Amino acid sequence: MSAIPTLPVHPAAKDCDPRDLGWMQGSPPPADKLIRFQDGSGYRFPQLRWSFAHYRQMVPTVAVPRGLKAATALPASAQALPDIRYTPMGGVGTCSWADMMEATYTDALLVMRQGQVLFEHFGGVMSAQQQHIAMSVSKSFMGLLAACLVADGVLDETQRVDHYAPELSGSGFADATVRQVMDMTTGIDYTENYADPQAEIWNHMRAGGVMPSPPDYNGPRNFYDYLKTVRKLGTHGERFTYRTANTDVLGWIVTRVSGQPTAQLLSERIWQPMGAELDAYYTVDPIGTAFAGGGLNTGLRDLARFGELVRNHGRAGAHQVLPAAAITDTLAGADPARFAANGPATLPGWSYRNMWWVSHNAHGAMMARGVHGQNIYIDPKAEMVIARYASHPVAANIANDVHTLPAYHAMALALMG
Amino acid sequence: MSAIPTLPVHPAAKDCDPRDLGWMQGSPPPADKLIRFQDGSGYRFPQLRWSFAHYRQMVPTVAVPRGLKAATALPASAQALPDIRYTPMGGVGTCSWADMMEATYTDALLVMRQGQVLFEHFGGVMSAQQQHIAMSVSKSFMGLLAACLVADGVLDETQRVDHYAPELSGSGFADATVRQVMDMTTGIDYTENYADPQAEIWNHMRAGGVMPSPPDYNGPRNFYDYLKTVRKLGTHGERFTYRTANTDVLGWIVTRVSGQPTAQLLSERIWQPMGAELDAYYTVDPIGTAFAGGGLNTGLRDLARFGELVRNHGRAGAHQVLPAAAITDTLAGADPARFAANGPATLPGWSYRNMWWVSHNAHGAMMARGVHGQNIYIDPKAEMVIARYASHPVAANIANDVHTLPAYHAMALALMG
Repeated sequence: MSAIPTLPVHPAAKDCDPRDLGWMQGSPPPADKLIRFQDGSGYRFPQLRWSFAHYRQMVPTVAVPRGLKAATALPASAQALPDIRYTPMGGVGTCSWADMMEATYTDALLVMRQGQVLFEHFGGVMSAQQQHIAMSVSKSFMGLLAACLVADGVLDETQRVDHYAPELSGSGFADATVRQVMDMTTGIDYTENYADPQAEIWNHMRAGGVMPSPPDYNGPRNFYDYLKTVRKLGTHGERFTYRTANTDVLGWIVTRVSGQPTAQLLSERIWQPMGAELDAYYTVDPIGTAFAGGGLNTGLRDLARFGELVRNHGRAGAHQVLPAAAITDTLAGADPARFAANGPATLPGWSYRNMWWVSHNAHGAMMARGVHGQNIYIDPKAEMVIARYASHPVAANIANDVHTLPAYHAMALALMG
Repeated sequence: MSAIPTLPVHPAAKDCDPRDLGWMQGSPPPADKLIRFQDGSGYRFPQLRWSFAHYRQMVPTVAVPRGLKAATALPASAQALPDIRYTPMGGVGTCSWADMMEATYTDALLVMRQGQVLFEHFGGVMSAQQQHIAMSVSKSFMGLLAACLVADGVLDETQRVDHYAPELSGSGFADATVRQVMDMTTGIDYTENYADPQAEIWNHMRAGGVMPSPPDYNGPRNFYDYLKTVRKLGTHGERFTYRTANTDVLGWIVTRVSGQPTAQLLSERIWQPMGAELDAYYTVDPIGTAFAGGGLNTGLRDLARFGELVRNHGRAGAHQVLPAAAITDTLAGADPARFAANGPATLPGWSYRNMWWVSHNAHGAMMARGVHGQNIYIDPKAEMVIARYASHPVAANIANDVHTLPAYHAMALALMG
């Protein structure tokens, strides 16, 4: 486990509010306020403070319909948000909740306890009607959908990948088990260092149309064709290594087993029964494949509803929406010993199960996490769920964790009195 | 006015149901079932029977949010749909309502009378939760939004285009009035014959990213830059000529005057207050500009809600959503004498006002119309609204009109008893 690195200096969140900076305002917007997919400006900071809430203006997408029923209520709590202080990891002194929000470039944040909303904030270009990209929080949706199919008995986690996707028989995934994919313990030749322009993750994203390709690009043109090119490196099952390719392989398997495209499955299994208030959407590759590893966009409140659904072991009101066994299995986590070597420095003792990050702390907390600060934080003991969208200049979540993890835990303790 | 041409032979609608043909089914879909934006297959028949209901899987889009309130109810009528017969224009014998639906490749159809639903049909890949492209029905939304701004006194229809959009001072639109743009009587060098590959409409659509561009394309890359290139031809105000460029010029003006992007304006002025049940969406160009001339996608029921809002002179329940004056002005139509020379052969005696097609018949009927059979048909005397999405193999609406217009009128008469 590496040390927490020193972070580069970026403008403070308050000095790069995307509304104040005027991105994409005007008819047409001035040239220096344009954000375009093709020139890559949507991924640059501070432009990403706008584009993270406007992905579908840049790339093709598919809807995750909420259905036609009324949304499940998110009642306000009578309890006020406690006034907490926390010490940042590796830091000195103490910070407030507001400090955490500012230090981590928070776009939108919601705190629930016992199903009631204590705090809701929309900043920058976010609003209650706007979806924001969840980045790798998307993975936790796919991981849980797969866990549900396992609990239903229609997906066998002990089977090899090539049993379900024979097209991957020539790839490094062929002899991995579904369980190894679900827990990201596959041994494959694929790096996900966002600071390295040569990392495999960029080829993956270019193939999926999530990133612009250079004019002379002649690589794969969809997720399926990309995944077939991934080679084996090392041994499956030995240790956790965070690699997005696993989630898209899992998406392939889940789609094949369920017979439903990812967006439709998410709509029917979760989005409609949990009573979402906004349609969600996935970015799609040039043949319409949802980007299971990082392409989900949702409203903040629906992210919170989903967190609450998980906290309640799959129940929404009186209705058992998801099999409780899938949640129990996720909350239990995986083996922290397999996680330690490659886990983030900010997550000592954690593990990764069904594409959720499990703390194994005294509260049994677990998280869904996406680059640049996307979070669902579930604290079962405190009966607390936090949903957060952010646009931190640094992709790696350790940049957020140093503030968010101690702040979330301090909030849990304060709420428990 | 030209004669109604003989139409080429296409497979019958029942023999090219997009679900039966298996487009985009599978993980991944087989190569011969793929529909991709970049190779133009989304515009080919019969693939368009799938793609018209899946535009956002092919191109970037922007949402028209419905808001968070419950949708306005669309109550079912106690009245049964009358069993009508009609004679197709230029044809012999009689057809039934079902014949009309089959002959015109109907994807979804709804008939309302007095605010109650007598008939609702979803076929092919359409459903109550799916949006479908409205094509040039989009224009009637923009025309009415502009008419509302005129009624509000914030847009002066007698002003020149270059007053509101000085960037167009070098174009053929510069000295046209806003009213001439709203009624498409501008004299510009722009043809819209969908059967002609050299027609200007294709340059317009390529600039907006609505059509794929060849690799060596070096033309304009957004709607604004394209509109600046349109030259004058003839005299403004003399006669109606159907040209989509007018709607995007109007969209520019409306956006500038209102200070709101098109999607936001439509959401705040119409979609939210009328109680839509689905978000709508526009296709957008590479800088995020909504395609006002043809890029709106909505659910069928919301198209019907909008028709009903117009039929009720802008009232939704007790709430005056749109200024009645804007509707009255639209229903009155323009001068049929200016329409006759270039109007479709199937619309004798009609006119075009605020981007609506006005029949001037005894029922005061008017329509919003989009290529391949998209329709809103409002019959004030029969208190009837018909909303229809279709995927006819022929772009030009005359291919639909020969069946739909006599069928709609027969339905109106039958409903009136």
